[in-house]
Amino acid sequence: MTSDIRILGFAGSLRRASYNRALLREAQARAPAGMSIEVFDLIDVPLYNGDVEAQGDPPAVAALKSAIRAADGVLMVTPEYNHGVPAVTKNAVDWASRPPNDAALSGKPVGIIGASPGMTGTARGQSQLRQAFEFTNSYCLPQPELLVFRAHEKFDAEGRLSDEATGRYLVRYLEAFAAWVRRFKG
Amino acid sequence: MTSDIRILGFAGSLRRASYNRALLREAQARAPAGMSIEVFDLIDVPLYNGDVEAQGDPPAVAALKSAIRAADGVLMVTPEYNHGVPAVTKNAVDWASRPPNDAALSGKPVGIIGASPGMTGTARGQSQLRQAFEFTNSYCLPQPELLVFRAHEKFDAEGRLSDEATGRYLVRYLEAFAAWVRRFKG
Amino acid sequence: MTSDIRILGFAGSLRRASYNRALLREAQARAPAGMSIEVFDLIDVPLYNGDVEAQGDPPAVAALKSAIRAADGVLMVTPEYNHGVPAVTKNAVDWASRPPNDAALSGKPVGIIGASPGMTGTARGQSQLRQAFEFTNSYCLPQPELLVFRAHEKFDAEGRLSDEATGRYLVRYLEAFAAWVRRFKG
Amino acid sequence: MTSDIRILGFAGSLRRASYNRALLREAQARAPAGMSIEVFDLIDVPLYNGDVEAQGDPPAVAALKSAIRAADGVLMVTPEYNHGVPAVTKNAVDWASRPPNDAALSGKPVGIIGASPGMTGTARGQSQLRQAFEFTNSYCLPQPELLVFRAHEKFDAEGRLSDEATGRYLVRYLEAFAAWVRRFKG
Repeated sequence: MTSDIRILGFAGSLRRASYNRALLREAQARAPAGMSIEVFDLIDVPLYNGDVEAQGDPPAVAALKSAIRAADGVLMVTPEYNHGVPAVTKNAVDWASRPPNDAALSGKPVGIIGASPGMTGTARGQSQLRQAFEFTNSYCLPQPELLVFRAHEKFDAEGRLSDEATGRYLVRYLEAFAAWVRRFKG
Repeated sequence: MTSDIRILGFAGSLRRASYNRALLREAQARAPAGMSIEVFDLIDVPLYNGDVEAQGDPPAVAALKSAIRAADGVLMVTPEYNHGVPAVTKNAVDWASRPPNDAALSGKPVGIIGASPGMTGTARGQSQLRQAFEFTNSYCLPQPELLVFRAHEKFDAEGRLSDEATGRYLVRYLEAFAAWVRRFKG
Repeated sequence: MTSDIRILGFAGSLRRASYNRALLREAQARAPAGMSIEVFDLIDVPLYNGDVEAQGDPPAVAALKSAIRAADGVLMVTPEYNHGVPAVTKNAVDWASRPPNDAALSGKPVGIIGASPGMTGTARGQSQLRQAFEFTNSYCLPQPELLVFRAHEKFDAEGRLSDEATGRYLVRYLEAFAAWVRRFKG
Repeated sequence: MTSDIRILGFAGSLRRASYNRALLREAQARAPAGMSIEVFDLIDVPLYNGDVEAQGDPPAVAALKSAIRAADGVLMVTPEYNHGVPAVTKNAVDWASRPPNDAALSGKPVGIIGASPGMTGTARGQSQLRQAFEFTNSYCLPQPELLVFRAHEKFDAEGRLSDEATGRYLVRYLEAFAAWVRRFKG
């Protein structure tokens, strides 16, 4: 059996032991039947610089844009820093929204989830990130939300999700996201 | 006569010919009596990475934090990308808010201005950036605002502000910002 | 020929000569083939009060909820006050999101446009309003945007849209919104 | 001994048994030495209507504006509805920002706190409300924040704060707010 929908997933943290990288791995492992999630590591994507862009997209940026174009949907897994979207997460969107292929995100279904040690579970960061996808004409799933608060209590020392309730919320989220992506697939 | 207040200014664009770099230079040139603006170039500040941080702040990051700590106030001059704060601008805040010296931004007066080719003049990006400074306990000047819209019509080919009305708004902004910084100086 | 999609429109201003009421009338007049827009006047909807609600929805609130449920989509035409959503606009959403029939907005396509005398054309108010529709699980059209800035120059003394460019943007918006609503109609 | 700073407090809910009304009463009771909090009930303030305003401010609106003008600072205690500021809360700001006496809020120190049954404790509503006070040129205390989550577990059946930790956070908040107001009192 093959996957009918292919999702590209990003974790908005470069730290190896990041809760959001762990959450993205968990999403990969728990993807519902018919959905596959490929992880794109943002570690090699430099900060956006219009002068660099004018010389041609750096290889990691060209790869990012191609991968988005080829995917049926995009899953952003993001921490929240300073009440907002981390630079790492926003940087991926800032590059992906630029020509050529600036329409890569247009009409693309997008899911946003996140984990943080605090109580608000990236709520404010997710709100800001949604605003970016209005501009790019992407289709963000409005509900359900997945806000993993007190993340340090939800993952074990090996970065595996150990909290059962969070696992169920994640599965429910991914099922809703799969239905959302299929709705737009054609 | 010496400057009694020293401002550290950042342009949230790495592009050399950026309107926001030009606006920051203009702010330097038009700073009111008693205020000096030093420009900190973000070009060498890498994307925030907690694993890198754990090995010690990279030199540009250490310099950034020191410069903020030494300044009486911070002036952010930022474009807007995708309805929000550009990654370059947010990255400076994400690093500056981290330990050690994470209190560098706490209690620091902050001004936010910006230029963009569109009509909304970075309004949404500025709103998001203000949210970051709530978290860092910085004191953002609420009014006046400076939203330089249709920036391509306001600067000449050499990147000098050629629009007189914008020049007057900038001076008015800087005077208000100087008064705001002095209020907190002690 | 009959309309295949029926839109319910709200103006987020109670003032009779409001630019946003005028913009909504203009949208009615310029609706593309197959789309009809019914205007619901918010003048009789009281401020949300949970104690009043506990006694049963006031008649205007019950009518609002029924009209939303019956419509294929909702068009919000809103001013911006104090960098945000006006109370009048948000109040309609606050009531509509409440039980019984709290699912009236769930899965409903929503369009947001607005007019203001300033330069930013309700950009910040629209951003906040979109956040409300995430919660209600409504599907907001991401692009195009319609931000009618310097509204006092775009309407004549009788409240008719006199600016041709704005008229064309409005038609383009309504066509995109019609396609968006049809996509979800099934 | 007299209070040297007088705060005007609003609860952004009209429901009698509201957690936010209860939180405001608790703030009154726990105000630090030298600060008094007067409660202004928003129950009689109608939805903003420019045509009504043109006939003269309704009595409750005139009283609201006078009370703000006379106070040294304003404390907003607000729920969050639909990921944003409730209409009731925003309506108070929309009226208060209008002429005559539109400068009532200008330069006024403002504190924002809130309670909600959910986990995010009004975080998104508070962020939106802060944006309103940028426009009115008010000075919002950036930190600490007070987000009372799972409010139904923090108050007893009589609406008294029964959670000790929340009580300590409230006292800490009020002390910081008192210092913030004094800073601007001159």
